Amino acid sequence: MDTTKKTIIVFSGDLDKAMAAFIIANGAAAMGDEVTMFFTFWGLNILRRPDGKAGRKGFLQGMFGAMMPKGSAKLGISKMNFGGMGAPLMRRVMRQQNVSSLEELIDTAKEQGIKMIACTMSMDVLGFRPEELIDGLEFAGVATYLGEADEANVNLFI
Amino acid sequence: MDTTKKTIIVFSGDLDKAMAAFIIANGAAAMGDEVTMFFTFWGLNILRRPDGKAGRKGFLQGMFGAMMPKGSAKLGISKMNFGGMGAPLMRRVMRQQNVSSLEELIDTAKEQGIKMIACTMSMDVLGFRPEELIDGLEFAGVATYLGEADEANVNLFI
Amino acid sequence: MDTTKKTIIVFSGDLDKAMAAFIIANGAAAMGDEVTMFFTFWGLNILRRPDGKAGRKGFLQGMFGAMMPKGSAKLGISKMNFGGMGAPLMRRVMRQQNVSSLEELIDTAKEQGIKMIACTMSMDVLGFRPEELIDGLEFAGVATYLGEADEANVNLFI
Repeated sequence: MDTTKKTIIVFSGDLDKAMAAFIIANGAAAMGDEVTMFFTFWGLNILRRPDGKAGRKGFLQGMFGAMMPKGSAKLGISKMNFGGMGAPLMRRVMRQQNVSSLEELIDTAKEQGIKMIACTMSMDVLGFRPEELIDGLEFAGVATYLGEADEANVNLFI
Repeated sequence: MDTTKKTIIVFSGDLDKAMAAFIIANGAAAMGDEVTMFFTFWGLNILRRPDGKAGRKGFLQGMFGAMMPKGSAKLGISKMNFGGMGAPLMRRVMRQQNVSSLEELIDTAKEQGIKMIACTMSMDVLGFRPEELIDGLEFAGVATYLGEADEANVNLFI
Repeated sequence: MDTTKKTIIVFSGDLDKAMAAFIIANGAAAMGDEVTMFFTFWGLNILRRPDGKAGRKGFLQGMFGAMMPKGSAKLGISKMNFGGMGAPLMRRVMRQQNVSSLEELIDTAKEQGIKMIACTMSMDVLGFRPEELIDGLEFAGVATYLGEADEANVNLFI
């Protein structure tokens, strides 16, 4: 078993949980670990391009797509969201404390070569096409995740 | 260490998280892994029989039991639930995309011999008796979970 | 690899999830395992002293601090919270079923020598100083967590 590999399933699309996921992932990569992040369900919202064209979709998928946050900048927080006001407040406090923003964390993850996989089954369900998501992703299903997890010594579900 | 064993603690009683848990569990079992799912707290709601008689309970337990979803078909989703409307919409989209329903996933889990354990301490707290839950479960506590996790190479909390 | 070590990231500040975390941690410690709990984001609320003086803080941090639950006794539950009424009801049912309270579980964790680490980055963001938190904690960041996780055979994110 390779003790220098980590996997994180990013199920949540909340700003605070997304940040936790990327902080752990980037920390591990900085320590020399190989890291795989597997984005599924609401976690895919983190990866949406703000300017992504939706294209033709079924009615329900279109409705889901229109109501879900369009990219990392639009995410809410899991507690004290106050109808969307909590996230910008938390972002401001973090900036004051010199904590990297989620967008910076995502850039760092890419620079460090963290493997970011978008779950294809969830993409089908939510109606997301690859071109609606940010660059640099791989596309795969649960079998790929399980193969990665089998080689890792830390596997988290966030 | 047996590298072909996985455990999942299913704490959440949300439809979307329950589906994620069963999709991972069934995927691992299909790849030849031994899988144990440990249902605790709200996760027990996934296992309630829709037709289960409640029997005599304390007042608070009866109240909790009456207000919690009675089985997999009644679960809400963790985001965009819209007072219960989100779950049937998500189920419809999934059916359109040929994703198995939660009930089919549970059946597959049983067929594949996945060990499903109901947490006895949580059953006491929520006032669930074994006959109120679906067939094919084992009943045990946290020590049993820990014994299983010690033999596994992937352990998730959902 | 040391097969008798466990780590739990406690991200959630909900009563039910906090109890799950401590029940697993205490169970593992009782079976002879070394256990590390890493409290981050909302999970820090579990560790706040009810009588802790807040001291000087920035405006936003003060606001967050004032609105967040001040210690384990004030936590809500993740489902059926009913504006705060759910937590005392759940506590009452648990007492009837002879389940230890969260405060007893925390005491047991300390007695069993479980290592409880408060995430310093989250403390900075939420504006918590060490003296506002309960005694017996260590203070460290994600690199320390990762070092502990590398030595463990079960790593959960709650």
